[in-house]
Amino acid sequence: MSYRPVPGDRFSFGLWTVGWQGRDPFGDATRAVLDPAESVRRLAGLGAYGVTFHDDDLIPFGATDAERESHVKRFRQALDDTGLAVPMVTTNLFTHPVFKDGAFTANDRDVRRFALRKTLRNIDLAVELGARTYVCWGGREGAESGAAKDVGDALDRLREAFDLLGAYVTEQGYDLRFAVEPKPNEPRGDILLPTVGHALAFIERLERPQLFGVNPEVGHEQMAGLNVQHGIAQALWAGKLFHIDLNGQNGIKYDQDLRFGAGDLRQAFWLVDLLENAGYDGPRHFDFKPPRTEDAEGVWDSAAGCMRNYLILRERAAAFRADPEVREALSASRLDELARPTLEPGETPAALLADRAAYEDFDADAAARRGMAFERLDQLAMDHLLAARG
Amino acid sequence: MSYRPVPGDRFSFGLWTVGWQGRDPFGDATRAVLDPAESVRRLAGLGAYGVTFHDDDLIPFGATDAERESHVKRFRQALDDTGLAVPMVTTNLFTHPVFKDGAFTANDRDVRRFALRKTLRNIDLAVELGARTYVCWGGREGAESGAAKDVGDALDRLREAFDLLGAYVTEQGYDLRFAVEPKPNEPRGDILLPTVGHALAFIERLERPQLFGVNPEVGHEQMAGLNVQHGIAQALWAGKLFHIDLNGQNGIKYDQDLRFGAGDLRQAFWLVDLLENAGYDGPRHFDFKPPRTEDAEGVWDSAAGCMRNYLILRERAAAFRADPEVREALSASRLDELARPTLEPGETPAALLADRAAYEDFDADAAARRGMAFERLDQLAMDHLLAARG
Amino acid sequence: MSYRPVPGDRFSFGLWTVGWQGRDPFGDATRAVLDPAESVRRLAGLGAYGVTFHDDDLIPFGATDAERESHVKRFRQALDDTGLAVPMVTTNLFTHPVFKDGAFTANDRDVRRFALRKTLRNIDLAVELGARTYVCWGGREGAESGAAKDVGDALDRLREAFDLLGAYVTEQGYDLRFAVEPKPNEPRGDILLPTVGHALAFIERLERPQLFGVNPEVGHEQMAGLNVQHGIAQALWAGKLFHIDLNGQNGIKYDQDLRFGAGDLRQAFWLVDLLENAGYDGPRHFDFKPPRTEDAEGVWDSAAGCMRNYLILRERAAAFRADPEVREALSASRLDELARPTLEPGETPAALLADRAAYEDFDADAAARRGMAFERLDQLAMDHLLAARG
Amino acid sequence: MSYRPVPGDRFSFGLWTVGWQGRDPFGDATRAVLDPAESVRRLAGLGAYGVTFHDDDLIPFGATDAERESHVKRFRQALDDTGLAVPMVTTNLFTHPVFKDGAFTANDRDVRRFALRKTLRNIDLAVELGARTYVCWGGREGAESGAAKDVGDALDRLREAFDLLGAYVTEQGYDLRFAVEPKPNEPRGDILLPTVGHALAFIERLERPQLFGVNPEVGHEQMAGLNVQHGIAQALWAGKLFHIDLNGQNGIKYDQDLRFGAGDLRQAFWLVDLLENAGYDGPRHFDFKPPRTEDAEGVWDSAAGCMRNYLILRERAAAFRADPEVREALSASRLDELARPTLEPGETPAALLADRAAYEDFDADAAARRGMAFERLDQLAMDHLLAARG
Repeated sequence: MSYRPVPGDRFSFGLWTVGWQGRDPFGDATRAVLDPAESVRRLAGLGAYGVTFHDDDLIPFGATDAERESHVKRFRQALDDTGLAVPMVTTNLFTHPVFKDGAFTANDRDVRRFALRKTLRNIDLAVELGARTYVCWGGREGAESGAAKDVGDALDRLREAFDLLGAYVTEQGYDLRFAVEPKPNEPRGDILLPTVGHALAFIERLERPQLFGVNPEVGHEQMAGLNVQHGIAQALWAGKLFHIDLNGQNGIKYDQDLRFGAGDLRQAFWLVDLLENAGYDGPRHFDFKPPRTEDAEGVWDSAAGCMRNYLILRERAAAFRADPEVREALSASRLDELARPTLEPGETPAALLADRAAYEDFDADAAARRGMAFERLDQLAMDHLLAARG
Repeated sequence: MSYRPVPGDRFSFGLWTVGWQGRDPFGDATRAVLDPAESVRRLAGLGAYGVTFHDDDLIPFGATDAERESHVKRFRQALDDTGLAVPMVTTNLFTHPVFKDGAFTANDRDVRRFALRKTLRNIDLAVELGARTYVCWGGREGAESGAAKDVGDALDRLREAFDLLGAYVTEQGYDLRFAVEPKPNEPRGDILLPTVGHALAFIERLERPQLFGVNPEVGHEQMAGLNVQHGIAQALWAGKLFHIDLNGQNGIKYDQDLRFGAGDLRQAFWLVDLLENAGYDGPRHFDFKPPRTEDAEGVWDSAAGCMRNYLILRERAAAFRADPEVREALSASRLDELARPTLEPGETPAALLADRAAYEDFDADAAARRGMAFERLDQLAMDHLLAARG
Repeated sequence: MSYRPVPGDRFSFGLWTVGWQGRDPFGDATRAVLDPAESVRRLAGLGAYGVTFHDDDLIPFGATDAERESHVKRFRQALDDTGLAVPMVTTNLFTHPVFKDGAFTANDRDVRRFALRKTLRNIDLAVELGARTYVCWGGREGAESGAAKDVGDALDRLREAFDLLGAYVTEQGYDLRFAVEPKPNEPRGDILLPTVGHALAFIERLERPQLFGVNPEVGHEQMAGLNVQHGIAQALWAGKLFHIDLNGQNGIKYDQDLRFGAGDLRQAFWLVDLLENAGYDGPRHFDFKPPRTEDAEGVWDSAAGCMRNYLILRERAAAFRADPEVREALSASRLDELARPTLEPGETPAALLADRAAYEDFDADAAARRGMAFERLDQLAMDHLLAARG
Repeated sequence: MSYRPVPGDRFSFGLWTVGWQGRDPFGDATRAVLDPAESVRRLAGLGAYGVTFHDDDLIPFGATDAERESHVKRFRQALDDTGLAVPMVTTNLFTHPVFKDGAFTANDRDVRRFALRKTLRNIDLAVELGARTYVCWGGREGAESGAAKDVGDALDRLREAFDLLGAYVTEQGYDLRFAVEPKPNEPRGDILLPTVGHALAFIERLERPQLFGVNPEVGHEQMAGLNVQHGIAQALWAGKLFHIDLNGQNGIKYDQDLRFGAGDLRQAFWLVDLLENAGYDGPRHFDFKPPRTEDAEGVWDSAAGCMRNYLILRERAAAFRADPEVREALSASRLDELARPTLEPGETPAALLADRAAYEDFDADAAARRGMAFERLDQLAMDHLLAARG
């Protein structure tokens, strides 16, 4: 079986991923600046379908209008030459020191207004380039100390900002939805909307909740020790998985942004299984950082690895789901019973209370003796993941 | 200043906290069974206002109706004698082995039905005893392996269960609201609704969301490395802080249930500051476990410590908020600006776009040079916490 | 390829693993008591080589001498019948409430003396049954609060205890070495000798360091977020890997004791690669807990899965090391240069200072441009792990 | 009580701490370069005793000999003007991209040789300036993937490097000791010698172990979820606490380097209690980063806060130890019994075996009923920490 990606696989990459120069808190850049047009060409050559960016990835902060135009033109040319799509765009509201206390929730009101304007401007470009999803990562919406941020006030400001963005795309008639990206911490000590759950809950208090969903990132959930498959399943259940950032992370520590598959391989397997089987049809977007030990060629090895690992896991998940022994094992573990409603159609509390089988005649000790057979089921999954069946 | 609790402080304790016998995964009980009536009397003597319980804390699983009646009567007598209230009640859906794969989301449908019946029965008792809040902790609603639980199906089952409970209290005309308690893991590898955020989001998909809120537990949020103050502030912002479980935890590890104040003292300070100043008027409920190294007397020292630490922190938070230098420092850190809307009243996207001060004439570099003065503010907080001002 | 274990694979299991009844902090036992003799027979049937135990696993705490004799006899018979070895034995110094504050470092001196006597007694049995390794896990040697344990005093007491044990086996002429097992926390808030490193350091201060090594457990290191491969490599480097406990853990949380392979699969791969290639010749000992959702049959599925996963990973690691492209990639990543000493044979500081190529003529910028090619190498490892080469 | 630091308090700061410009993985510098001489003057003005530095903090990487001389001269002048000492010096082996794969354990041999030379050169300067301690933090001695670093080989290279440094200072007759600084991860995925324990163990395999000790950093231990007081107590117990880095960290996440006292306040209290009472007489060195939200003045507020918090905690710890009720409580918790040897003077294994009181006549159940009274003791500590006694 070959694991060569094709555009139909819907793989996309951020310009900032392959373009990362390797500057970290303790060290200077190890790689040269990468021309966005070159990135487009290399990604297309590897079989990707799309490319995404922050405004400042394409057009340096503070560029003149003429420079801006020239950067966009050059980028468009590369897109036209390669056929790469721009399915998603986002804003950089964290690199310039003006955002040191956040953007939409900065204590300084003029910074908040500037952040909104920077975002509105880039939304226009996003739509121009055909993007359907606009990601909002509140990189520095948070605090390191307790009095520095009144969280209630900050959430009010965040709602105000998102409501304005929703009003704008509605008024403009843009076909664009927003995907909020949660992260628990780093670069701030604690960040608002730290997990998929917090973001989903917040969205429900917006003026136009239907325009807002989430963009979970594998590593961000794992930085809080959470099960990625579970969080993304809840987002899907809520109808809110608008986009996804795939990468790797080795547990609770600094944000590693490893290539997809590196880090927790078993969670990666279950995530692919979920995405392929639960109706997600958006891009498979990689938000990773090729380690700074790599040179320019290593960057492309790392990018190719992301796609290859996804394809391997997709194959293994499909085989797992197709295996008759697995189906039998799922049934032995009563997954079919879980799919069945607990109540009879239309059953009322009174009816349930009247059912003696449910309580008075239920033998709890006997029921407790039934094994769940999860270990056998999980070993079958392991065998499929490792291609060790038979 | 004395730190003696009085009923007006609204401190409550679970029977299972002071009654914990000290059985842990590696060891047998170190303390004898504690009579619930005795707990009521001791708690009242210490200055508590209320007592709470799981059904099985009061009435052993499988008790006959006569035994049940006798246990309840004895407990009521103690309440009457002491004036202690029962502000909250909850169900034990995790100790008996029949719940080994969960309760409302167990793969076995008959277990789910039994769990609903067990809950309904205890809701009647809760109302009888005057409780206004019913806590739902899904102790074992989760999994250790990826195929063992279809999360979408499980969330459907959870919704079904909560909708039934909501229907029941509505039909009965009970004045009772539900508080869902999140926890990331333990005793299951991963638990559904792992954080305050996930629970808040889930509630929005219920039939009667107005009946449902959250019961965050300090240590449960800290087991996911999350900032407790932030999570609870979001619950308050959403109008959903129906109850709270106060205790202590030393970071990301097994569930420690230390007395309140032990563990992360600075987060405890900010939490008290928040509860006292952001309009929470429910009980201050302690869900802790006196360490198993303690004998019977140590249990009461531990319980008294929970209340004492709350009172000390309450005093310090009040002094912090009243200090004119703190007010000046909050202003220097522009907390007042954060409280001010980002937009002018009625300001539209078009109006914002027309404001050149917001973007074209905004000097980002100059704005970036403004210091936030958070360190001075945080040191003032530290000084107040430690009573080291002056 | 078949993955059937045989005794030559040197797989061993603790009686307490398959015999775990599933009691956890929130729930009662889900499985019946398992007869040690039955465990021996089942493990032999699965292809294991050895069985290990705590004194109390075999002989209940407080048994009379006659009961003791009968239990041992019955166990010996099962060993004789099956040919299973007893390569390691250990002491239970944590279940009985007398050990609630520890054993060798309990504040109570009489508890410490009792713990020593309990250990000496079981050492005699260990030797009688042919064990060559005696594991010491200080289950409760720790504290929940700062003043409760003077760590310096406690380490003095621990040294005293180990020195006594060392003196005993020396005087008796026993061919038995001790393996200290580190764990960061649980059941105590913090445990002394929390990692492989702390245990290795401690050993160096004993009277007979040569008799003492470590028994690292996969999950225990991962509970501190540490890389298992690294910690065990340091133990091997120090000549101190006397035994190993294999299991699975999903990151930093409560002690999960999953079957080997579950949890962090990539670390499991590198660990097997290390054990097979770095000269470890002791037992591959599984210290896991079949999840309490399993019934009696599930227990054996779980045990079989431990061995199967080890064999799969052993096969994959061997293929990785044998692949010529991997060898080339290792060389491209300069692993061969790492194996070469930094200094010339006998090179003195003065000689190094005189070498202009090392500093004055070294072009740091040019050297910095060399890529390490780690991503390609790691993808080759991933391909081998997943059997996705070609 | 005033909390004004004086040189006799032995507080020291790294040039890189107050001089940190606020560059982080997601953002550019927020503060201007700070002149080392200015830092010296400001620190002296705040009451510090010493200043420390990496070579590149004082002399930019690649400076000519003339530039170097000028930088050193200017710095010396500031030292002379203020009376500040230079108790410790260290090497920057992580910022320049040439160190992207480490220094003493880089796979490239020429990088390793260069790193040694860079270190030797700076040792000369350290001695010239009167330093008695040389800290070695292996910032990038580690890996992100399993095959990228053979840990056994890497530890051989690390030993070789330290043995060379030990030989050098011995040959030169320098009065200088080395303090190895552990860190679990960041900027590498996993770093060699991740904890105090691993570093202590490693030192024992060096040629001149007496020249080597550790330099634990509060936050580094907490990044592995370890108890700082415990780790540093073990270092003291081993006679190896040569230096210490004080700062703050909020649990397991990226390296925060908060000012001392921020983060885990209770561990900070116990750490100060330990340092003041267990014979540590070295500098109290702060290795923190003023948050990038601060401007130049905020930097000095943050630095002053480090010292103030230490002094407050020192006062509280002294009051705790001096309180007669605390002494009584320590005795009630049998800390005095822990200080007493478990064995009688000269007691042999045989003598212990002959003592029936230790085993045959020991009533384990009765002993188990004794409470440890740790909760009362810990509440007394809390009261002293919070100045809430009486």
